[in-house]
Amino acid sequence: MAKIGIIGAGGRMGRAIAAAAADAGAKVSGGIDRPGTQPDALGDVPLLADAASLAAVSDVMVDFSSPAALAAHLDAAAAAGTPIVIGTTGLEPAHHALIDEAAKSVAVLQAFNTSLGVNLLAHLVRETAARLGTDWDIEIVEMHHRHKVDAPSGTGILLGQAAAAGREVALADVAVRGRDGITGARPEGAIGFAVLRGGSVAGDHQVVFAGEGERLELGHRAESRAIFARGAVKAALWLAGRAPGRYTMNDVLGL
Amino acid sequence: MAKIGIIGAGGRMGRAIAAAAADAGAKVSGGIDRPGTQPDALGDVPLLADAASLAAVSDVMVDFSSPAALAAHLDAAAAAGTPIVIGTTGLEPAHHALIDEAAKSVAVLQAFNTSLGVNLLAHLVRETAARLGTDWDIEIVEMHHRHKVDAPSGTGILLGQAAAAGREVALADVAVRGRDGITGARPEGAIGFAVLRGGSVAGDHQVVFAGEGERLELGHRAESRAIFARGAVKAALWLAGRAPGRYTMNDVLGL
Amino acid sequence: MAKIGIIGAGGRMGRAIAAAAADAGAKVSGGIDRPGTQPDALGDVPLLADAASLAAVSDVMVDFSSPAALAAHLDAAAAAGTPIVIGTTGLEPAHHALIDEAAKSVAVLQAFNTSLGVNLLAHLVRETAARLGTDWDIEIVEMHHRHKVDAPSGTGILLGQAAAAGREVALADVAVRGRDGITGARPEGAIGFAVLRGGSVAGDHQVVFAGEGERLELGHRAESRAIFARGAVKAALWLAGRAPGRYTMNDVLGL
Amino acid sequence: MAKIGIIGAGGRMGRAIAAAAADAGAKVSGGIDRPGTQPDALGDVPLLADAASLAAVSDVMVDFSSPAALAAHLDAAAAAGTPIVIGTTGLEPAHHALIDEAAKSVAVLQAFNTSLGVNLLAHLVRETAARLGTDWDIEIVEMHHRHKVDAPSGTGILLGQAAAAGREVALADVAVRGRDGITGARPEGAIGFAVLRGGSVAGDHQVVFAGEGERLELGHRAESRAIFARGAVKAALWLAGRAPGRYTMNDVLGL
Repeated sequence: MAKIGIIGAGGRMGRAIAAAAADAGAKVSGGIDRPGTQPDALGDVPLLADAASLAAVSDVMVDFSSPAALAAHLDAAAAAGTPIVIGTTGLEPAHHALIDEAAKSVAVLQAFNTSLGVNLLAHLVRETAARLGTDWDIEIVEMHHRHKVDAPSGTGILLGQAAAAGREVALADVAVRGRDGITGARPEGAIGFAVLRGGSVAGDHQVVFAGEGERLELGHRAESRAIFARGAVKAALWLAGRAPGRYTMNDVLGL
Repeated sequence: MAKIGIIGAGGRMGRAIAAAAADAGAKVSGGIDRPGTQPDALGDVPLLADAASLAAVSDVMVDFSSPAALAAHLDAAAAAGTPIVIGTTGLEPAHHALIDEAAKSVAVLQAFNTSLGVNLLAHLVRETAARLGTDWDIEIVEMHHRHKVDAPSGTGILLGQAAAAGREVALADVAVRGRDGITGARPEGAIGFAVLRGGSVAGDHQVVFAGEGERLELGHRAESRAIFARGAVKAALWLAGRAPGRYTMNDVLGL
Repeated sequence: MAKIGIIGAGGRMGRAIAAAAADAGAKVSGGIDRPGTQPDALGDVPLLADAASLAAVSDVMVDFSSPAALAAHLDAAAAAGTPIVIGTTGLEPAHHALIDEAAKSVAVLQAFNTSLGVNLLAHLVRETAARLGTDWDIEIVEMHHRHKVDAPSGTGILLGQAAAAGREVALADVAVRGRDGITGARPEGAIGFAVLRGGSVAGDHQVVFAGEGERLELGHRAESRAIFARGAVKAALWLAGRAPGRYTMNDVLGL
Repeated sequence: MAKIGIIGAGGRMGRAIAAAAADAGAKVSGGIDRPGTQPDALGDVPLLADAASLAAVSDVMVDFSSPAALAAHLDAAAAAGTPIVIGTTGLEPAHHALIDEAAKSVAVLQAFNTSLGVNLLAHLVRETAARLGTDWDIEIVEMHHRHKVDAPSGTGILLGQAAAAGREVALADVAVRGRDGITGARPEGAIGFAVLRGGSVAGDHQVVFAGEGERLELGHRAESRAIFARGAVKAALWLAGRAPGRYTMNDVLGL
């Protein structure tokens, strides 16, 4: 089985990836983290000097670190020919251009959300929206823990984009957010968002297609954030040995 | 079994009450509606001349008409000593004063929502909010059909008031509505509202109490608006023969 | 728009189809029912003498009658070249052979359940089961009204078959029904069924894919049985003018 | 704040209680476990020699060990006058007799399930069942992880007993379990159970009251088994300093 190198191995996500790799029976080749990180911050994972050293001993790397360090990680991956999974958030267009460039010489899988379940749900939502006419109203409702500061969630928006793509419209043109007060009747073709916050909920999402007399409800529940690590490991094992190119979680799912 | 007189008998709700009375095995004594209403608008229900005539032949009356006509209906009920169920919406403080006055001489039951299930749910929500501390976050989510013009629903607000009453706070001080954008972390003690609209949904409500590691979810689903007529008939049969006073659905439920 | 002929027009489903056709702006050419049926049993729909007469004046026919009468209806459809939608339940292999034979000369769409939502859900379930490994457990839960005499529902079984087809196994080999008592751990690859009965529920179904740390939940709620009539009308309008052959609701949905 | 002594401190539940106590800001006085347990099996909690030693330094003890050791723990609690929370499962009538006896001289709180949410839900279910007639059908549906070997869950049965108590019937007389096949219409007054198994679900329970045209749904979701430790700590802090007697989680909740 492929050996996985972990970038950002001392962080919460890095440690979760090491645990998920162990659960999956995969071997972790080592990890790197920002300068000054102590070896014991990585648990059992050997601390290496830099991305080039990590790429040299790994069959695939997983990066959940920061946008600022992305260029260096992509360079190391490309130089060594070691595929890389990018789960870093907050990417700007310039970062995507770097990824496109690296993908010419090495396999790169970039994902906003590495949960298999969420990515499959987005696919189902897109397909459903494409099949049903606008006489079926689309609503997205999500709940997260009380500490979350933004609404709707990034995953909620991802699901809205999938619905909009299925209908071949731009989400920004049809999104209805924060419904409150005298709103008037629902606009045809709208995609609505409703947001709940409370407790320690890791993340529940549901997309409702409401037609005359019937409803389709497509939802996902995350019990903990460990599912993102689990999906990243699955993606890494799938990516090891692939030809250069840019991949997504849909490729892992065979969609 | 008590004979029920229907005020507003030619309207959608009046006809639903006649049907619900038939289902419950109750007798309908007659009905009235605004001047000019034709007898066949009431189906099998005999059209009477006015509220006094209706009160004379009924053991109890049910009024789902308009606030403007309320005074005349209460007068007729009080004069004849015929109890009356008031389901009319849009009541102002002046209407409530009229009801209080009439209740000195006849039994009056006023209800914003005559569904047994919704009223029982409000009771459970109040009790739950009183037992659980503010380390349990309260969220209310509701869905109604695409034609509904206001958000949250009146029943959603009623449930929010029940939760606030259980905590001995004013809903206006803690309500968070239309959550969207960078909201920051959830304020402790908040009662949040989330609103979905779509299809032909008659009315679904859920109150979520989200604590650390667990959630209580208390909800109600209406299949059709017939439940309001059914509850009104149940209330009327309970009210017939009662002593003067002002009653609520909680009395019918024995709460 | 195509003219629809209704077989079994005096029954509950026949009348629902006439109503759904009116809602959809479609014209009803006439109806037939068993011998002795009075014209006023069909409401506004003209009562015709037999299937041949109906086929002659219709662009498409819809049949929700009985298996015993199927052969005569197919013969009439084939003779006139009038496409036919078959929603009759209780079909045996012999009936399917008749349908296959008729489909050589006329368009025939046969469906166990004519709801668009349910058929789309079955498609999503099949696709999801095909994508996710057996480390995702499949459970099907459904609720129907208190009068239903069989468990699980036909639609529940249809969804189970879709899941089994996605996994390329036979449902009978993996179904776990009526779980109760000391069952031991869940067998890998099982497809479980759980059944609720109560009230007046028209039909709720949910398929749960439960993986490590996350769940996908794909469900459908019917508010009333009118959705089957609505779907049958949609199928009929789609079928009118089609070439001979055997079709399903998936064809209507473009799946 | 009261000092908590943990019986069975080296086990999964014992360690969870130590963590929950830390989260609640409570002090742990020490722990005991079966003979031969090594001190480091208890993490930071000091290993003491026996129950008497533990009782001597604690304001309250929590016991999630085994029925066989219950008598010795109760004796130590009673001798020292140290209140004790009993969360041990598998108790027989003889164990309950021992608890009754000990409760004459010390405060004892015994609970099958120490989650605040589940105990509150049981209370709400009992009250709802008492208010609504048997024209509202009661169904209980629960889902647990794939490793669970019994069905329905103990908590599911506890909820069924609460519903039966509200109706003043015995659960055994009205329970319908494992519904499958040609069942006939639902018997009036039945309490039905439906069971799902899959994934890593910590425990979801829902009680549905299904009336004509409407449903009340009262449910609980556990994100992890840590809620039982959290509730046990809350119960212990409540119990410290109480007069002798036998208590339940309802007392902690003020029900």
